Amino acid sequence: MNERIRLGIAGYGNLGRGVEAAIAQNPDTELVGIFTRRNPESVRPLSPKIAVHPLDGIDAFADRIDVLVLCGGSKADLPEQGPALAARFNTVDSFDTHARIPQYFEAVDAAARAGGKVSIIAVGWDPGLFSLARLYGESVLAQGATYTFWGRGLSQGHSDAIRRVPGVRAGVQYTVPVSDAIERVRRGENPSLSTREKHTRECWVVLDEGADARAVEHAIRSMPDYFADYDTTVHFIDEATLHREHSAMPHGGFVIRTGTTGERTSQALEFSLKLDSNPEFTASVLVAYARAAARLSRSGQAGARTVFDVAPALLSPKSAAALRAELL
Amino acid sequence: MNERIRLGIAGYGNLGRGVEAAIAQNPDTELVGIFTRRNPESVRPLSPKIAVHPLDGIDAFADRIDVLVLCGGSKADLPEQGPALAARFNTVDSFDTHARIPQYFEAVDAAARAGGKVSIIAVGWDPGLFSLARLYGESVLAQGATYTFWGRGLSQGHSDAIRRVPGVRAGVQYTVPVSDAIERVRRGENPSLSTREKHTRECWVVLDEGADARAVEHAIRSMPDYFADYDTTVHFIDEATLHREHSAMPHGGFVIRTGTTGERTSQALEFSLKLDSNPEFTASVLVAYARAAARLSRSGQAGARTVFDVAPALLSPKSAAALRAELL
Repeated sequence: MNERIRLGIAGYGNLGRGVEAAIAQNPDTELVGIFTRRNPESVRPLSPKIAVHPLDGIDAFADRIDVLVLCGGSKADLPEQGPALAARFNTVDSFDTHARIPQYFEAVDAAARAGGKVSIIAVGWDPGLFSLARLYGESVLAQGATYTFWGRGLSQGHSDAIRRVPGVRAGVQYTVPVSDAIERVRRGENPSLSTREKHTRECWVVLDEGADARAVEHAIRSMPDYFADYDTTVHFIDEATLHREHSAMPHGGFVIRTGTTGERTSQALEFSLKLDSNPEFTASVLVAYARAAARLSRSGQAGARTVFDVAPALLSPKSAAALRAELL
Repeated sequence: MNERIRLGIAGYGNLGRGVEAAIAQNPDTELVGIFTRRNPESVRPLSPKIAVHPLDGIDAFADRIDVLVLCGGSKADLPEQGPALAARFNTVDSFDTHARIPQYFEAVDAAARAGGKVSIIAVGWDPGLFSLARLYGESVLAQGATYTFWGRGLSQGHSDAIRRVPGVRAGVQYTVPVSDAIERVRRGENPSLSTREKHTRECWVVLDEGADARAVEHAIRSMPDYFADYDTTVHFIDEATLHREHSAMPHGGFVIRTGTTGERTSQALEFSLKLDSNPEFTASVLVAYARAAARLSRSGQAGARTVFDVAPALLSPKSAAALRAELL
């Protein structure tokens, strides 16, 4: 690659900051600018050299950006921004509401086709690398079962749910996989596992002054969808402890495929991640797929894609010949 | 997919038998026949319904085979058969002499392009799925280090080397990864590991009558390239024990990528395999890539490919929409 891939960042929270850092680690990419719906003056990039612009003026940058990395949230931002920006820019995003992926794909695909652009959606680790592990696993072991375990890691959605409980000033929630269940899967037992048997939930809560700890604990543990189906533990701590010990955003997990070939021969694949920062890792995956989006667009393609549609070689800055010689 | 993918098997040893079994597990594929350089009468397929033909008459089957699965060895068979058959058939193979992959790729690519066929070479787990883990790992974590450990598993090449030692009647060799080294890599220590520190070698040997055990042990342990650079243990057993306890062909291993993002945040990916039968698993991977080869050919492509060039979705019998809904 002779010319660097010019990237823009749309939205600058933890994920956007992670993308800025990842671009700095990939010498074949460069950051054109950050685009925000906030007041640009209020945004402080990691590097003071990076320009910050209002998102609603981004069309003026159409000729200067090869791929726009969408760093908004899946709930409120991407359902609207994804299709809108896909019509005018090649994009990558980390849309992660699994149940809505098909309809989001259709909306982005229509916009990208109309605009002659490429959009790779749902990039990150789940959806993303874990999805790939599930696909490779079931494709190469046709008879078998696939299991996904998450954690130990901080879940943003469950932490938000805790914070909505009356009497809670602050708090975080960790999803913890059950070791015994993982071991049973690894041994090829092919177990039927209930929700409760796969993961536990661990909450670290700071109470409002005068709040009733027992009432808060009960409210959390009985919350439908989020906690009622799990063995949940609630720990009360002070605010200083929360900030000191629970400010990082670690995550990870395991995808395990076990199956049989031939005359009942056991075979097992496992892919696991251990991440000290979930948003920084997701950002790093996004930049690799931005490289792929630039190449797909250059080769004349248009429309939405997922990690399933992207040939692995497109992710690497190395040539096909170098990959064959060094990594195959 | 409405029509089944019609496959042929060229070469019928452990790998060919594994391919026959894998085809039976994939209902969108069917086996047209087995092609052999031996006397076809001497070949006994798993299913008595399968026809066995002489390999030198295979051209007559050109219209009846969508993809030919080459099951010969990398040393003597594939360097000649690969390019020759790639000119007339879509092929997949498990060529695994890492150092010769670039030149093998060029030879097959020239033949396949000339014939308008697709050939996916070096398919299996290493090269193959482990290569993919290395590529995804270094692409999504640009700053880091990649480690591959093999085993515990039976190495065919090292077992052959043992059997060439005077005084050895029979024997097998297991490659064993050093747990302590794996743990250091997992902890993100990024260690420099010598050959000796990564793997040990374990030999199980049956002596010829009257052979000198100490001389045999010395000859094995001091053998250059194969054993001299490793901590090697040699166990002497009788032939019945060898057949009872060492007839399986287990293998596996670990690919670990550790790296940092942002301000020195540690991140780690790991892919591992635990295989009770190396040839059956390799065969199962070959059939998934045969599906991809059929699709690439149908879409008008020609030339050699590796696992790096094949979009993951092409491996699955499911539609793109089903993959997005079920696995993403």
